[in-house]
Amino acid sequence: EILAAITAQLGANAPQGSLAGRRILVTSGPTHEPIDPVRYIANRSSGAQGTALARALRDQGAEVVFITGPADIRPPEGVEVVAVQSALEMEAAVQAALPVDAGVFAAAVADWRVASASDRKLKKSKDGLPVLEFAENPDILKTVSRMAQGRPPLVVGFAAETNDVVENATAKRLRKGCDWIVANDVSPATGIMGGDENAVILISDQGAEEWPRMGKAEVATRLAARIATTLNSKS
Amino acid sequence: EILAAITAQLGANAPQGSLAGRRILVTSGPTHEPIDPVRYIANRSSGAQGTALARALRDQGAEVVFITGPADIRPPEGVEVVAVQSALEMEAAVQAALPVDAGVFAAAVADWRVASASDRKLKKSKDGLPVLEFAENPDILKTVSRMAQGRPPLVVGFAAETNDVVENATAKRLRKGCDWIVANDVSPATGIMGGDENAVILISDQGAEEWPRMGKAEVATRLAARIATTLNSKS
Repeated sequence: EILAAITAQLGANAPQGSLAGRRILVTSGPTHEPIDPVRYIANRSSGAQGTALARALRDQGAEVVFITGPADIRPPEGVEVVAVQSALEMEAAVQAALPVDAGVFAAAVADWRVASASDRKLKKSKDGLPVLEFAENPDILKTVSRMAQGRPPLVVGFAAETNDVVENATAKRLRKGCDWIVANDVSPATGIMGGDENAVILISDQGAEEWPRMGKAEVATRLAARIATTLNSKS
Repeated sequence: EILAAITAQLGANAPQGSLAGRRILVTSGPTHEPIDPVRYIANRSSGAQGTALARALRDQGAEVVFITGPADIRPPEGVEVVAVQSALEMEAAVQAALPVDAGVFAAAVADWRVASASDRKLKKSKDGLPVLEFAENPDILKTVSRMAQGRPPLVVGFAAETNDVVENATAKRLRKGCDWIVANDVSPATGIMGGDENAVILISDQGAEEWPRMGKAEVATRLAARIATTLNSKS
């Protein structure tokens, strides 16, 4: 009985679950790209899927670094939270979080920032219309996927598509050099954007695997389990 | 004693407060102007001051129509809530809410919308940079202020300035044709944007009246009292 108590005590302190001892980075939410002090460009992302995923990875025992843009929902407890606004800030936070066993890039990062961002509020001018000049943001997924040294053993990207989902997401996987793309159809008719459910197609070197429509928490649990299986088969 | 009970009963049902019987419109929050199904341009507005004001007007017995963009905070209870996204939607909601005894335009309405808004997600093109064409949004404050018929007896605008606050807000009052401008300094150093406090300058035909820095609820109570005094002196 004493032995059982000691074992239980040891068990409570030791990392548990299929991802125990793994360090996993998750990006989530939108980014906000400033135009001037009162205006910005944003992506329509609630952060729901990324947050659910961080929670599921934590539940499997992973040490989770959760890098989040300004999302509507609260980050999960028990993960390391890094809050950022812009894509440039997110990139810096990702670099600082490496090395990791897996990187999951669920954030909706702005492709572009406003190069001509002003530190004064833009006024209506004579002709009434602003001229915004854009600059390309760093491609965080591609950069991490193509690291010559220290690339995470598993790199997972997300793709929100409104049309030709499998075709666009498959091309994205090759273009970025990541291992998987978690693709979904966010065209307004699906009601997925901002909703509780997700209909996911997992793109890997095995092709496209369509998952049934299910809750975002369920998608997260299933993805976390798949990540565990993959990491544990590699090492 | 019976008479007292009847009087109390009547009192409970009759509108109370200095704005009883007045219908007041309040706009609040940011607007979101779509770029494509997943991107939009937003204004940095929490909706805190507009929401506090709607609550204070309600507490003074006014019938409040609260037209709100996608704000972070919940609208108050006991007001008629009209939720909108874009400036065009807000303008339509304002027109539908007229006539009113006073219109308070606290929303941070986008000056411009994206004329070239796409119903498909914009892709990175060969040169990598999008071209956004803008169109001017309706100027809701100016339109209502300059109504030839049915103009609300009191029209109040807001001005969020980062520099030359009194000068810019005084010019804005004349340009729009509204009765008052509630001006504040939202330059980052003040910490007002997104904070609990506000430092307001009330611009009217009497000049600029600087209020001490106080909580947004207190600013709202003071503004509601001023609105009541003004409306009650007019009729």
